This record gives sequence, C-alpha cells and structure tokens, in this order.
Amino acid sequence: MPETARRIVLASRPVGEPKPSDFRLEEYPVPQPGPGQLLLKTKWLSLDPYMRGRMSDAPSYAKPVGIDDVMEGGTVNEVAASNNGSYKAGDIVLAHTGWQTHALSNGAGLRKLDPNAAPIQTALGVLGMPGMTAYSGLLEIGKPQAGETVVVSAASGAVGSVVGQIAKIKGARAVGIAGGPDKCKYVRDELGFDDCIDHRAADFAEKLKAACPKGIDVYFENVSGAVWDAVFPLLNTFARIPVCGLIAQYSATEVPDMKYRTAQIFRAVLTKRLTIRGFIVTDFAAKFPDFIRDMPAWIKEGRIKYREDIAEGLEHAPQAFMGMLKGKNFGKQLVRIAE
Amino acid sequence: MPETARRIVLASRPVGEPKPSDFRLEEYPVPQPGPGQLLLKTKWLSLDPYMRGRMSDAPSYAKPVGIDDVMEGGTVNEVAASNNGSYKAGDIVLAHTGWQTHALSNGAGLRKLDPNAAPIQTALGVLGMPGMTAYSGLLEIGKPQAGETVVVSAASGAVGSVVGQIAKIKGARAVGIAGGPDKCKYVRDELGFDDCIDHRAADFAEKLKAACPKGIDVYFENVSGAVWDAVFPLLNTFARIPVCGLIAQYSATEVPDMKYRTAQIFRAVLTKRLTIRGFIVTDFAAKFPDFIRDMPAWIKEGRIKYREDIAEGLEHAPQAFMGMLKGKNFGKQLVRIAE
Repeated sequence: MPETARRIVLASRPVGEPKPSDFRLEEYPVPQPGPGQLLLKTKWLSLDPYMRGRMSDAPSYAKPVGIDDVMEGGTVNEVAASNNGSYKAGDIVLAHTGWQTHALSNGAGLRKLDPNAAPIQTALGVLGMPGMTAYSGLLEIGKPQAGETVVVSAASGAVGSVVGQIAKIKGARAVGIAGGPDKCKYVRDELGFDDCIDHRAADFAEKLKAACPKGIDVYFENVSGAVWDAVFPLLNTFARIPVCGLIAQYSATEVPDMKYRTAQIFRAVLTKRLTIRGFIVTDFAAKFPDFIRDMPAWIKEGRIKYREDIAEGLEHAPQAFMGMLKGKNFGKQLVRIAE
Repeated sequence: MPETARRIVLASRPVGEPKPSDFRLEEYPVPQPGPGQLLLKTKWLSLDPYMRGRMSDAPSYAKPVGIDDVMEGGTVNEVAASNNGSYKAGDIVLAHTGWQTHALSNGAGLRKLDPNAAPIQTALGVLGMPGMTAYSGLLEIGKPQAGETVVVSAASGAVGSVVGQIAKIKGARAVGIAGGPDKCKYVRDELGFDDCIDHRAADFAEKLKAACPKGIDVYFENVSGAVWDAVFPLLNTFARIPVCGLIAQYSATEVPDMKYRTAQIFRAVLTKRLTIRGFIVTDFAAKFPDFIRDMPAWIKEGRIKYREDIAEGLEHAPQAFMGMLKGKNFGKQLVRIAE
C-alpha cells in the first residue's frame, strides 16, 4: 500500500476567532518528484500569529491563503527523494511547505540546515524568522541604548522572549508583559528580564508603571489592545515603537475599542516626538548576515535562551494554532509532523 | 516724556479657541540696559501655531507661558542701545523677545542678521524656524524620492509652502491641501505644486484621491482632523508621516472625533509598514548648516518662493493670531511692530 500524505486546508474564512471547522484535514497520495524536483517530507511545522492574517482576505502585505488551499507555514523538512543535483536524500532543509506532510520542490527558496550546529527546529524559532524579527525590529527601529527601558508584550513568546534578552545584551532595562504568573516567572527567572508583568492582573497598568520608574523608551508591540492602553501613558519623549504584531485585534470582527483615541495618539506623537513604525521581518533582509553571526554566538554564550511548545502530529495543528492566538502556548509553538 | 513700551501678556488660559480677553495689552517703561546688556527694539514678531500650545498648561515639550507673562515668540529686533561689546546700536538681530516692543538681552541666543542678504523678516519665515521645520522634517523623516508623491496640509502656510517646493526640488510629485480656492490657486500657480486640493470642498476626499493616482508616499502632517481622515486611506506601503503640527485639534476642549480609530491606524502601521514620527525643529539642530546653505541658494534660483501676511502694530497681534488658527492668514503671518 503506498504511503498516504496528509494536509490541512483552509475550509472557510474565520469570522472572529478561528474554529475547528475553518480547517479540514485531507489525505492525498504522496507526490512523485519530476525532473529536477525534490520530495520533501515535513518534520517540523512552525505556527505563527501572522497566519491569522493569511486566513482573511482583508488587504494586507501578503496575499491570503485560498479556500481549499493548504495552510501556509514555515517548515523544516527532510529530503525524501531527489532528482536535483543540489540535494540528496536525507538532507535537512528549511522550507515553507505549509501544513502538510509532503511536498514537491524545485529547490528554490530552500536553505540547507546543519543538524550538528543546532537543533533543526530552531531554524523556525530563535535562529529563524521569529528570532530575526526580534533582532531586526528591536535593533533597526527600537535602537535601545544602555540605561533605557525596553518593554515588550507577549514576552514569553518566540519573538518577545528574544526582544527582551537582546535588550539586556544592549544594556537596557527589559520589562516583559505576559499572560499569567507562570509565564511571568519564566520571563523573569529563566530569561533574565528585569521584570515581567501579568496583563491579566486587575492592577496591570499600575504594576507596569511601577516596573518602569523611568518611563518607557522602546515599546516592542506584539499585541495591541489593553496592553497598548497601559503602555501609552508611560512612553518617554523620543520613544520608539516597532509595531511587529497586533494579536489582540487579529480576530476582531469590528474595530476594537481602545482607550486612547486617534487624536490623543497624534498629540503624543507630536509633543513626545514618538516614532511608531510597522515592519515585517523581510523588510530587514539585509540584516540577516548580522543576525546569523550574532544569534548563534549569544545562544552559545548562554545570553539567549528559548523554550518550545510542541504539538504532536499534523492533526493537532489547528488546535495548537487556535490556542496560540489566545496565548495558551508557552514558548515557540511548533508542530512535530514526523520524527 | 520718556518713550513707553508695550507688551501683550497672557490674561487667561483659553478654553477652546483663544478669545480677545485671553490677551491683555500693557504699557511699561522702556527698560534701561545694565552692564553687558542690550536694549532691543522689536521690528517684527512671528506668529506661529505652536503658540497655542504655550497658552495651555497641558503637558507638552515646552513649558507654558505663565499667566500675566509676556506671550512668547520669535522676533527680529534692532539694537537700540548696547553695553555689550559684541553688538552696537543699529545691529539687526534674530531674537525671541515675544509680543512686546522692547526687551533687554545679555546677547545670549541672538543671531546677527545681514539686512543686505535678505529681507530681515525672512529670518522668521522661509529662512528661519518655519523654513527649517519644513526642510528638516521633510528630508530627515519624509525622505522623498524622485517619482514619489508628497502631500502636505496647510500648503500655503509658512511651513507647508516650503515642504511642497522642496519636494519638487527632490523630484517628487507635490500635492498641497489648503483652505479655499485662492490659496489653492496660489499653491498651484505661484508655488508650482502639481496640484492643490481645497479641504473645504464637499468632495475633498475624492479630489485628493484623484490628485494622488499613485497613492501617497509622504504625508507631512500640519493639521490633523478631517484632513488626516482623507489622507489615511491613500497612504502607500512604507509611507512616512512627519508629524509637525495638529492645528485642527489645538483648541479642542475634548478629544476630537476622527474617522479612523486607533486600532485601524495600528493595523495600517503594521500591514503597510508606515512610519509615523513627531518632531520639533530643534530636534534637527545639527542640520541647520545644511539648511542655511541650501535655502538661500534655492530662493536665489527662484525654486523657493514665499508669501507674507503682515499685521500692522503689536495691538493687532491677538486678532492676527486668532485668525491664523482658523486659517485666515495667507502666507507667513508676521506682525510689524516698528518700521
């Protein structure tokens, strides 16, 4: 009996929070590589908040996943068969084959990984897109200076955890915001942030203020919503706000209420000379060589730590993804597709 | 009979739009310069929108004018008497002696002007703070590239008129926004903008869109309010928004309504990778040598034109200022204090 491949497709565009019926698990025959092609077998799938945007057809920086199309996503794959001289069976590659067990490739856009250099799935996390997002957004837009205060939301997540640790490397005070006491304890005790505040606490805004006695010079925005509302009054003159994500509003069905209105934001932009700047990791592609020089060294020196939250099996990807949008993951969310 | 000096002081903090009773005209004896001091006689007073902020005690980047204190402002003065070796009677200086006819100075912060190089009052306009504001904000934050579209509000004003003309020098398409057909005609025909749209027109938003067929790459914000609402949907990916002023909301007594809410602004910041950055001209003091090299040359070459709106006599300063906040001035608003 031939091996059967499996994939998860977008069954319908979510209204509000994604639900199980927005996804559909399908089986399909394992494809056969043609001339010049590779057959890739997925080992690891990365789940990331940006995928919520791809499920929607609202205008954005990338085109949406089509209905009945395979959900998009970064992957680590093993070359199962190769008709391409550049790759051989057993090679491990970083790819973007999405939520499926097998895919064909002509080799374009792949990056070979050395399994001896680092655990291969870190190419989806601290050594991959989330790590590079943190590195480039913080250093290119946030520009933290020694003695400044850097605040980052979703601080135990794949991006936020790296932002705060790089802020520490640069001599800044790092204050995280995370959901729940366990994550906050991890951010403080394991990652070494100076403080971490639980945004679910009733006195969140007061505690954040107390944790930032000299105000906030850099706010790395991952979430928006009530977290922004607590950060905004604490911003210092010349504060920089790299806008990386807005997870609290991704599933909103109408424009979310936020405490500070547009006119108030602009008044502060003017009087405090704030810089608010959105970015996508690929905007800073030119910085990738710096990243790939610095980050492995920092990990080796013990200055950057990371944590993974692993779902087992493709069939659990939707549940893990829906949980991540609600902050249920603890660390970089991965799905192990195959041993 | 000794000469009498006159000054206008802040009588009360305005609630909403300033009214005549918020100002008070006083007479006082002409002061006598002590050792090392100069007596300055005011020739020109500059009126600028930022002064509305100084009348309020809401937190801002500069401390407010105190009640019963002389209204603040940039001036061009003649040295009437000098006990200071660096200046002699008859010298013309750029100063900041405010809304009054006479003031003492120890010489600090003055800049000597050459009356043969340019009309002395241009040191308050195109060759002064407003010109430098336009120059630095556009070039340092807006960074217009050839072929891009630059939109500026308050386009016939002291700052906006220079912004659009520099945009043209840099090879960009310049589209102004101004109030009324006369100002728009001037901006188009005299200043050479590619287009200028009347924000008072009923179909303003549609006309602005038609004037920007390739969208907006740089929006130089002077006004906020309904003008921002029309600009916002037209912003291109990677658009830059130098925030220089928000004149439409300076006299607001409550948070003004704007069409696009905070969550929508942030969504666009992220998906379009916008840069929104506030600035004050002094933030770019290091660029002053560039400005003072480029701007006189551009004026001489006929590439930068300017227009002045002159009120006659200190007693008319409050009326001229109140009118300016409503857009009644046409060109740089000055008050001629003495011939």
